[in-house]
Amino acid sequence: MKIQHFADIPLEDVDVEGATKTKIRWLISQKDKAPNFALRMFEVEAGGHTPFHQHEWEHEAFVLQGSGVLITEEDEKEFQQWDVIFIDPNLKHQFKNTGDSMMRFLCAIPHKEKDISKQNPLGGAEVNNC
Amino acid sequence: MKIQHFADIPLEDVDVEGATKTKIRWLISQKDKAPNFALRMFEVEAGGHTPFHQHEWEHEAFVLQGSGVLITEEDEKEFQQWDVIFIDPNLKHQFKNTGDSMMRFLCAIPHKEKDISKQNPLGGAEVNNC
Repeated sequence: MKIQHFADIPLEDVDVEGATKTKIRWLISQKDKAPNFALRMFEVEAGGHTPFHQHEWEHEAFVLQGSGVLITEEDEKEFQQWDVIFIDPNLKHQFKNTGDSMMRFLCAIPHKEKDISKQNPLGGAEVNNC
Repeated sequence: MKIQHFADIPLEDVDVEGATKTKIRWLISQKDKAPNFALRMFEVEAGGHTPFHQHEWEHEAFVLQGSGVLITEEDEKEFQQWDVIFIDPNLKHQFKNTGDSMMRFLCAIPHKEKDISKQNPLGGAEVNNC
């Protein structure tokens, strides 16, 4: 069990290709012995964005602060504070901050490897983005 | 894929024994074809609380607004806005609003039944609490 303020959890660069002005905090991960999925917070500065990419796992996201657009292969939709966002597995997507202040959102993903005995530290660089 | 404001998602009573002044919104569930886990929002009025109970699944929670205490079989800890809470499987727990205004938190849980073809509507009454 843990209770921890978000600001006390390390803020790490998201340095994958296609990401800019974006950082991540792994709020809950396999390090906490979470058995099924991880909860991350993304912090995207004004003008920043995550990579336009796709993967086999879904995203369950919640916009804490700021606003932006979600770009997918289908269309482009605006989002605002306290919006809920679900992105299906394999759908190409990108989160873009179109506001003039920090945009923060939560994003939960399933573990790639459920065996917590392996203590995959943070799921690896491949999932260190959204 | 969906983007939806939280307030447009139905607010349902949590009427399990031991819960008071507590409501739930199923933000993302198997209805959305989420394959692995569900994201819910709980709204607990001043003086309200979830039941003191335990179950086999974990909670990954994030406090959006308000403050309270998390009571477990081990101890009692305060939480505040933008705190992260992880509750291990099988740990007895209760969320209590000790403030004088609404307390809202997100709480993600794994699906009990991963087969989305069954379209388990909202996971059933057993998981309609936190």
